[in-house]
Amino acid sequence: MSAVVPGRVPTPSSPPPDVVRCASFELVVTDLAASRAFYVDVLGLVVTEEDAETIHLRTLEEFIHHNLVLRQGPVAALAALSYRVRSPEDLDRAVAFYAELGCRVERRAEGFARGVGDSVRVEDPLGFPIELFHDVEHVERLAWRYDLHPPGALVRLDHFNQVTPDVPRAVAFMEDLGFRVTEDIQDAEGTQYAAWMRRKPTVHDAAMTGGDGPRFHHAAFATHEKHQIVAICDRLGALRLSDRIERGPGRHGISNAFYLYLRDPDGHRVEIYTQDYWTGDPDNPVVTWDVHDNQRRDWWGNPVVPSWYTEASLVLDLDGNPQPVVARTDRSEMGVTIGADGFSYTRPDDAPDALPSWKQGEYKLGHQL
Amino acid sequence: MSAVVPGRVPTPSSPPPDVVRCASFELVVTDLAASRAFYVDVLGLVVTEEDAETIHLRTLEEFIHHNLVLRQGPVAALAALSYRVRSPEDLDRAVAFYAELGCRVERRAEGFARGVGDSVRVEDPLGFPIELFHDVEHVERLAWRYDLHPPGALVRLDHFNQVTPDVPRAVAFMEDLGFRVTEDIQDAEGTQYAAWMRRKPTVHDAAMTGGDGPRFHHAAFATHEKHQIVAICDRLGALRLSDRIERGPGRHGISNAFYLYLRDPDGHRVEIYTQDYWTGDPDNPVVTWDVHDNQRRDWWGNPVVPSWYTEASLVLDLDGNPQPVVARTDRSEMGVTIGADGFSYTRPDDAPDALPSWKQGEYKLGHQL
Amino acid sequence: MSAVVPGRVPTPSSPPPDVVRCASFELVVTDLAASRAFYVDVLGLVVTEEDAETIHLRTLEEFIHHNLVLRQGPVAALAALSYRVRSPEDLDRAVAFYAELGCRVERRAEGFARGVGDSVRVEDPLGFPIELFHDVEHVERLAWRYDLHPPGALVRLDHFNQVTPDVPRAVAFMEDLGFRVTEDIQDAEGTQYAAWMRRKPTVHDAAMTGGDGPRFHHAAFATHEKHQIVAICDRLGALRLSDRIERGPGRHGISNAFYLYLRDPDGHRVEIYTQDYWTGDPDNPVVTWDVHDNQRRDWWGNPVVPSWYTEASLVLDLDGNPQPVVARTDRSEMGVTIGADGFSYTRPDDAPDALPSWKQGEYKLGHQL
Amino acid sequence: MSAVVPGRVPTPSSPPPDVVRCASFELVVTDLAASRAFYVDVLGLVVTEEDAETIHLRTLEEFIHHNLVLRQGPVAALAALSYRVRSPEDLDRAVAFYAELGCRVERRAEGFARGVGDSVRVEDPLGFPIELFHDVEHVERLAWRYDLHPPGALVRLDHFNQVTPDVPRAVAFMEDLGFRVTEDIQDAEGTQYAAWMRRKPTVHDAAMTGGDGPRFHHAAFATHEKHQIVAICDRLGALRLSDRIERGPGRHGISNAFYLYLRDPDGHRVEIYTQDYWTGDPDNPVVTWDVHDNQRRDWWGNPVVPSWYTEASLVLDLDGNPQPVVARTDRSEMGVTIGADGFSYTRPDDAPDALPSWKQGEYKLGHQL
Repeated sequence: MSAVVPGRVPTPSSPPPDVVRCASFELVVTDLAASRAFYVDVLGLVVTEEDAETIHLRTLEEFIHHNLVLRQGPVAALAALSYRVRSPEDLDRAVAFYAELGCRVERRAEGFARGVGDSVRVEDPLGFPIELFHDVEHVERLAWRYDLHPPGALVRLDHFNQVTPDVPRAVAFMEDLGFRVTEDIQDAEGTQYAAWMRRKPTVHDAAMTGGDGPRFHHAAFATHEKHQIVAICDRLGALRLSDRIERGPGRHGISNAFYLYLRDPDGHRVEIYTQDYWTGDPDNPVVTWDVHDNQRRDWWGNPVVPSWYTEASLVLDLDGNPQPVVARTDRSEMGVTIGADGFSYTRPDDAPDALPSWKQGEYKLGHQL
Repeated sequence: MSAVVPGRVPTPSSPPPDVVRCASFELVVTDLAASRAFYVDVLGLVVTEEDAETIHLRTLEEFIHHNLVLRQGPVAALAALSYRVRSPEDLDRAVAFYAELGCRVERRAEGFARGVGDSVRVEDPLGFPIELFHDVEHVERLAWRYDLHPPGALVRLDHFNQVTPDVPRAVAFMEDLGFRVTEDIQDAEGTQYAAWMRRKPTVHDAAMTGGDGPRFHHAAFATHEKHQIVAICDRLGALRLSDRIERGPGRHGISNAFYLYLRDPDGHRVEIYTQDYWTGDPDNPVVTWDVHDNQRRDWWGNPVVPSWYTEASLVLDLDGNPQPVVARTDRSEMGVTIGADGFSYTRPDDAPDALPSWKQGEYKLGHQL
Repeated sequence: MSAVVPGRVPTPSSPPPDVVRCASFELVVTDLAASRAFYVDVLGLVVTEEDAETIHLRTLEEFIHHNLVLRQGPVAALAALSYRVRSPEDLDRAVAFYAELGCRVERRAEGFARGVGDSVRVEDPLGFPIELFHDVEHVERLAWRYDLHPPGALVRLDHFNQVTPDVPRAVAFMEDLGFRVTEDIQDAEGTQYAAWMRRKPTVHDAAMTGGDGPRFHHAAFATHEKHQIVAICDRLGALRLSDRIERGPGRHGISNAFYLYLRDPDGHRVEIYTQDYWTGDPDNPVVTWDVHDNQRRDWWGNPVVPSWYTEASLVLDLDGNPQPVVARTDRSEMGVTIGADGFSYTRPDDAPDALPSWKQGEYKLGHQL
Repeated sequence: MSAVVPGRVPTPSSPPPDVVRCASFELVVTDLAASRAFYVDVLGLVVTEEDAETIHLRTLEEFIHHNLVLRQGPVAALAALSYRVRSPEDLDRAVAFYAELGCRVERRAEGFARGVGDSVRVEDPLGFPIELFHDVEHVERLAWRYDLHPPGALVRLDHFNQVTPDVPRAVAFMEDLGFRVTEDIQDAEGTQYAAWMRRKPTVHDAAMTGGDGPRFHHAAFATHEKHQIVAICDRLGALRLSDRIERGPGRHGISNAFYLYLRDPDGHRVEIYTQDYWTGDPDNPVVTWDVHDNQRRDWWGNPVVPSWYTEASLVLDLDGNPQPVVARTDRSEMGVTIGADGFSYTRPDDAPDALPSWKQGEYKLGHQL
């Protein structure tokens, strides 16, 4: 198997496939009915097709068969992160590219999920289960069907976020795959804590977050406006499901997007996200954030709840077994910011103890965790 | 002086004045220029009139002279909570009403602040400096002047929130003054932790929050829409002043309003608030919230930062000296909810340890405070 | 009957009832199922109670039984405009007040509609069927039930608008009834084209629009935010019912509110309205608009569609027969503004032909109507 | 010169340049101060650089030097539509591509505008002045500078719209240039009235509108949210400039975006636009609208003001002289929809006279124009 090994992943001589965008993901859930209630009844995703074992869901502006597959299984985990490639030939390129790296690769002409044709699944060098496909069934794009839009209408799948112990290694591999970095978090010593990378011209299709991994941090759906994210919170409150809210809503510094993090019935994390910016120019400026800047992850300086740093979903290999988790050895973002020895500033020249009384409690929690 | 004495305040035989609405408040600030920068340059309140010692500010839909007076002074404190009364004769009624209670009362035909005529100031039985006036200078209502509206336009003064050790005593007195309760927080044993009371037909003109008092918890300005509150946060981030944000934004359970709490340069707390509901019917249903319901103060179940419970501004007597603070003896809302022995639920039937991992850290902080 | 007679309505010696707010209205509709589809399925009003002949509907923040009664009948018309009064005794005052004016008055201890107790209905001196009540059944206030809120949630009944041939006469009568003018439209010669009057502290509970009357121009429901009005338009488009939109959305000059006018299946006009301003001070400044100011009815200068001026619903007497319509003899607002001889300006000093090419077609339509 | 000649433009054997996105446009204005007041003081575009003759403006999320150049001149006209290309070599490709078509081509290593390096300008086969460039000066991306964002913040340049007499010819040429059609308007006889084409994955970088041409119909700037477009209207009203509003705001059927059309002091048309959808998949479904569907251009069925169809700006050749305008010979969209013989339906099966009274006046105007 493509175990997560240390050191730089070699750059293949084979050209990478031309990835268009992140397109869907597959989650193993332990109670399909509970997951359906969350994703369909609460969040309003649209069922394209379902049976006793799987549910294929899509967003309101999607025209391909699905953006999310829920699959009943014994252990909650991520089964696949799926990208659409530009042409059928890109699947051949994908096979060659990953095979050259020694990754385990499976190709199925009939696809791994309904509504999708010829597909490749791999255990990538970072340990994640990645799917690539081109052929896909078209379904009705419900963009104009406002009669079906709830107050918190989810219109697109926006990105994936993956936990990996060695961020620079992951970034280098993703760049070989054709991704470009748009933003990252570093410290003065050059430690890279996280990075955001894109194929489509938004801030990201995939982010790499430093931590014990490979694990799945979250996938994000987009709304058009901020009030739609507020509406999701209000709805959760009305349903007495507010404890599904893990973090937010708030404004990210990184990406400049408005965000909310939810946890599904299995604890899988879902972000709701809106309004980042155009990154499609070849020389799009990369934004590097100081890890000690407390506006980097929340522009309003609201602290990140520790679970957001520490919890994430297991990821499966191609046999459906969880990948072993390798510990991060680089410094931890949570440790250097909100821990007892951590330091977060609002203004770069602030003294380490400059936080006002109402912020100190929030940023000094680390020692008890 | 009208010291805060225990026991029910007697109901005067004199009828109370007819209070129209909360109209303005006066803050003593220790650095007038810093306060001006906050209220004018950051929040966008409009200067009606100013000199070296005072600044008179109003909201964008106001037509009376001011909603806030900032006054340079040696100790940050609240100098007055001002209500407009319906007629000049209501000032005579106010004098008789408070005098009968033995309160210290001052009346000035020329007013205590610019732009206001005949006024009464009292040290009320709860220890707060209250002003009542009718005559007032009209200024331009800037409602249609969208060329002057910032993205976070503050359009009205909405309410005051006062900290008092004995909430039922405060409520009974305010009801004698003609206020009506719209919502409150209680526990199963009948402890009343806070109450919201109105003259104008919104959820409140004044709220009473249980705690060591008399102290001033906050005053609230209204926006029209939620995105305007988000815009204030975004602006604070851009100005690297995000540490002015103490709590929120969020949705209140109580009042159903969308909220944000800021702290000014002296630590005075200001709320930005929008979209509560009509309460003007004589039989408007009172909503009582269980103190253990973690959606009561934030409908999304986000925890209240401890400083929000513990910190508040001093209030001045009519000589400008701070009123002594009397400790609350009833149970503390923070203690019974987020303390080590506290308990907050999302659903009434939840077990005490039902909070998911990502909420436990937030609600179990109390023991360290 | 209380025919519409010329001349000032005498001021009764009996004091008027204390009206709290506009509370509900009753429409006769010719196809109850079609009306239900419009008000419930499209607009999202909540059914409190219904049977084969009537449907009682309320808004999402209402706690009284209903805001709208739809009643199957042979001729589309307005059957009642209902106001809530402060106390049961205000009904006695209402009877005396209207009786002194020679109006036909009916009182029913059991009410005229379900969920309402002791009620008075009158044919008022302007020819409108007016209802007053105090006792009413309380129902669940759905303010917090965000799981039931559609994207275009209607949260309150805001006001009525009535067509009457003699606006000053109507205003004087409404002032006797205790209403206060907040805004009006006049010309330099003193012709009053329309007036807005309030009991509750918003811009109006009732507006009087000059035209052949008595007729019912519209009733308005409130949303919290502007995007919710846009959502109603989008939904109508999705349902291929966009021809229900008569005018808007837009920003009123008068009231400063954001608006939309719809026509129901019988042609009854409904406004959706949000964000006017506080008018509850006793000396609230009255705003008078010049009839030639083309920002008075639409702040953006978009022209008013002629049907909005000319079409309105019949109103019924207490026997259920339509009141005869009396022609307006004063100048017509449409005639003086968009007619061949009309004139509308963007800036007061503009020459009469100053409108740019793209506006001329819109404002010069009158001659063909 | 590259006169507009009938018939299909041949497909060059040279490959087209790789166009990234529409990037800027240059307008000749007759009163630079008046134009500055409009674009800077009213709309809030940011001045990157200016002198007595030219002003270079950008949107709030832009990082290249400018999105709009205003240049003082004797006749109001469009001087250039500029696209950014992926690499410097794409300029060589552009020269070869257009030269093969016999177009007049100019290349300047120092650029035609400040802040831009090596550039190509051509008179394209449709008669439009097109610029292509890669090298460009980077400036501060003000995305996070919320302190500088007005309520109607313009964050991106979105697209151009061009008037051309022969839409299929224009589409075929643009496809040769690498653009893809996302939506169009046709009738049952196959007449193509307009088409939307993209390079970046939105609905368009360029639309072709059938009419006498070559003329410049408009350029569009994007906001994040709909209320920001409303805020621009409100601001224009406050400044008594509401007659700058030509059409809207409204929801497009085509593109599903929320829109507003303004006219600048020279009559150049500017659209404000938000929230279309992802079109970046290689098999993105093309949406074809029936010309008689009255929801195609406004999803709410509001009619298009005739000036929007008939008025447009002249375009300049590379010597700065206006291109001659060639009359459209195909049917006119306005003629077949709102003219005396026109027909617009809300529902496909509606009878030709099915529009309700309040819509008939709007859609039957054509005969008088």
